[in-house]
Amino acid sequence: MRSAGLSRRSHAGVRPPAILNARRLGIDTDREHVAYLRSDCALCRSEGFGTRARIELRCGARCLVATLNVVDPALLGEGEIGLSDAAWAALGALPGQPVQLAHPAPLHSFAAVRAKIAGDRLDAAAAAGIVDDICAGRYADIELAAFITACAGKRMNLAESIALTRAMTAAGQQLRWDSPVVVDKHCVGGLPGNRTTLLVVPIVAACGLLIPKTSSRAITSPAGSADVMETLAPVTLDLARMKAVVGREGGCIVWGGSVALSPADDLLIRVERPLGIDSEGLLVASVLSKKIAAGSTHVLIDIPVGPTAKVRSRRAAAALAARLKGVGEACGLAVVALASDGAQPVGRGIGPALEARDVLAVLQGHPAAPDDLRQRALRLAGIVLEMGGKAGAGQGLALAASVLASGVAWTRFQAICAAQGGMRTPPQARCTGVLGAPHGGRIAAIDNGRLARLAMLAGAPGAPAAGIDLHVRLGDEVAAAQPLLTVHAESAGELAYALAYAQSQAQLVTIGRHAPS
Amino acid sequence: MRSAGLSRRSHAGVRPPAILNARRLGIDTDREHVAYLRSDCALCRSEGFGTRARIELRCGARCLVATLNVVDPALLGEGEIGLSDAAWAALGALPGQPVQLAHPAPLHSFAAVRAKIAGDRLDAAAAAGIVDDICAGRYADIELAAFITACAGKRMNLAESIALTRAMTAAGQQLRWDSPVVVDKHCVGGLPGNRTTLLVVPIVAACGLLIPKTSSRAITSPAGSADVMETLAPVTLDLARMKAVVGREGGCIVWGGSVALSPADDLLIRVERPLGIDSEGLLVASVLSKKIAAGSTHVLIDIPVGPTAKVRSRRAAAALAARLKGVGEACGLAVVALASDGAQPVGRGIGPALEARDVLAVLQGHPAAPDDLRQRALRLAGIVLEMGGKAGAGQGLALAASVLASGVAWTRFQAICAAQGGMRTPPQARCTGVLGAPHGGRIAAIDNGRLARLAMLAGAPGAPAAGIDLHVRLGDEVAAAQPLLTVHAESAGELAYALAYAQSQAQLVTIGRHAPS
Repeated sequence: MRSAGLSRRSHAGVRPPAILNARRLGIDTDREHVAYLRSDCALCRSEGFGTRARIELRCGARCLVATLNVVDPALLGEGEIGLSDAAWAALGALPGQPVQLAHPAPLHSFAAVRAKIAGDRLDAAAAAGIVDDICAGRYADIELAAFITACAGKRMNLAESIALTRAMTAAGQQLRWDSPVVVDKHCVGGLPGNRTTLLVVPIVAACGLLIPKTSSRAITSPAGSADVMETLAPVTLDLARMKAVVGREGGCIVWGGSVALSPADDLLIRVERPLGIDSEGLLVASVLSKKIAAGSTHVLIDIPVGPTAKVRSRRAAAALAARLKGVGEACGLAVVALASDGAQPVGRGIGPALEARDVLAVLQGHPAAPDDLRQRALRLAGIVLEMGGKAGAGQGLALAASVLASGVAWTRFQAICAAQGGMRTPPQARCTGVLGAPHGGRIAAIDNGRLARLAMLAGAPGAPAAGIDLHVRLGDEVAAAQPLLTVHAESAGELAYALAYAQSQAQLVTIGRHAPS
Repeated sequence: MRSAGLSRRSHAGVRPPAILNARRLGIDTDREHVAYLRSDCALCRSEGFGTRARIELRCGARCLVATLNVVDPALLGEGEIGLSDAAWAALGALPGQPVQLAHPAPLHSFAAVRAKIAGDRLDAAAAAGIVDDICAGRYADIELAAFITACAGKRMNLAESIALTRAMTAAGQQLRWDSPVVVDKHCVGGLPGNRTTLLVVPIVAACGLLIPKTSSRAITSPAGSADVMETLAPVTLDLARMKAVVGREGGCIVWGGSVALSPADDLLIRVERPLGIDSEGLLVASVLSKKIAAGSTHVLIDIPVGPTAKVRSRRAAAALAARLKGVGEACGLAVVALASDGAQPVGRGIGPALEARDVLAVLQGHPAAPDDLRQRALRLAGIVLEMGGKAGAGQGLALAASVLASGVAWTRFQAICAAQGGMRTPPQARCTGVLGAPHGGRIAAIDNGRLARLAMLAGAPGAPAAGIDLHVRLGDEVAAAQPLLTVHAESAGELAYALAYAQSQAQLVTIGRHAPS
């Protein structure tokens, strides 16, 4: 018998070279990397690659791990490897360019995920290994789903949150600014229409603070701030562009994914979104890793609390606030967390363009602008101004209000939009449909979660003009058939689907019966 | 403004009919259902279907939910919908047959998965809803991964295990036999080469007990009993064939997936396998739902215990045994659980064909047959004979030994193989390589998990001839360079990859140094 070493050499000599020619097959798999090999491809046999195998692809200097689909020989030429659109883009391949195939290195970091599932704790090394492998594209979607689930609910303690936050921060770019104070604000979400970021940034920037705001796209909601801002100006800026905007205007509102701050977060969100699973541990790491990477020194975090908001009780809000402060402290970031009223949506619009319309009304001082959105934004801006030293204790709100009322914030917002690439007019949906009140009475409850789901069924955030206009607020008196909300959709199919859902959900808007007169 | 009802009707009238013509695109996605639509397809816009959307497909009487990939118009004709091989087979579509597309009904049962992740308990209704939706193909792979992870580790209590077991049993076919006693045996796995099923079934059947054994394929191991049996006879029998085999021979060894007992289990295994996550709750439900559905009344469960087996301690084995007995009792099944020695692999071969070779040696009474495999099988068969009333207490082992020694078991095994469709000769691998001892000494430890991984890297169970021949056992004295194991592979690439892994893992086989002489 031969020794193992001899064996390897002798076989390596006769192995066919694992090289095929790249072809963009024209299949959009979203961000999942898929490679297609012919079923009669000699490599499949020689390397033992079967469908759903994970294979490592190398093209020039780039490398990624893809999931294999075996295909009919008719779909590809001989010697070709088909690539999904995402794999094609990530490899930067040219048509026909050689792609080298190999078995991927064993995914050692997933052993830490299994251990976490079994009840172990994530330490710093495990968190770093997992985050690095996620960023390198080595996790398949089901592995991401398992990691997200393992961290969901209340399964992470403070030390784990700190480890994961540090690992996510270190995995991407990290900004540094020529200023001892860099502020930021964030809302943990769950409250439709709570689009204060687009008001706080121009107010705070106009007062001379640096606020380089990177926002996320929606995770389990019909709109993230980046989605709303995108209906008003480009948000996909690279780091150099973002720095130039902040240098000129003191603030920006860009999509975090495009500046590669905490890149693992965006890869996790791709799977978190369809699963609809919220996780305190991932939420804290996601929020704070982006703030730390953006170079922030002081961050205000808005935690809306309500029976149908993401955070349901003051107690849960206090626990989340403590975790955010604890992780922030360990990472050198001053965090103020503020529980706010989350009983009903903010403003009228729900969905990127409809929320942008509300923001513009507030900035422009329209008499009909939603006052709740204005008041929430002023309160937050006031606290940020105090945190950043631009107003004394208790003086921030008045300063923020004057900057908004004078039109200075509106001017600054337009300047920021121009600097980001030019201001736009939000799109309008092609189809609308109205849901009327089934009977008269007083609005007793509004379900944030079901409204968000309705807006998503209507097409938001993928269709930016889609969403809901909510015509009532808690305590309003309505007559039978009076419009409760208008659904906006880009397609008749989505409109019909969304309205059917709205009609089937009695708890969407709860109307108390009038007392018999 | 129009009322919601009016809106729906007026829009419904102008919606294009959501019907396209089926085309098998020739893409093997394993069992995941994928549908391909042209990017210029009017339906994508009118229904708001984007890539990775879940869409419901209806063709004739069949219906399933698929994940959408949007593709270049060049890949499909106008008015066509492409189907992955799995979706094509599941829909039973003919080329050009009309397929109706719709938004799938909301996946209500996933709310129970989210609640479980958040810390709630699964009740009977939730378990039934989840299992039914899984069986109907409504869960995407990432949703299956989240459910598996949510149930993993020790996260399910007795009531949840019972609920899930009952739901999984009810979801598929259920067998009834004309016998008051129907026996079965099962090994929870984790011990390579522990292929006692193929010995216990013919011994017990030869003694007149009914043992309709359905086995699973490997989950996180290089071979399941069904994989091993398949190298000796067909195992993909439908219910009628299985019943005929058991009616004639008293026993069978068939693949459970083909007789649709507990069909959710096979769908879960498809995602559990690549994740490599073991879950006590899912394990108990998986094992017992199949036994109950198969009509068993008495089941013996082998729980190997060892530092590198699936169950690591006597305490963990006792907990698992208690859970198995508790769930069995609630479901009317007598369960005996037996902790066994799991310190090292059983027999010599690891991998379907190599394990089949060991089984044949024992059945045929070869002098060189692995004695540990023989002794384990006789012990289990003896207990089953006692449980089934064919031997008095303490008399089962002797009866089993006599049936094996006399050749009656071997004759019965051949008859079972013939009844299942004809006995086969296990295949032999094309490539082999040997790992020699790095130095002399005494074998101090053998890592079951790493050996299993090595056999899988060599291609098992997908390549049935692939695997490992282990040449040493605990306590053996070896000289430097003496062969420790031989790797068998179908391809040079896999052999090289497996041997590289073997050389890198010092803990695979631990050799204690000789004491200085």
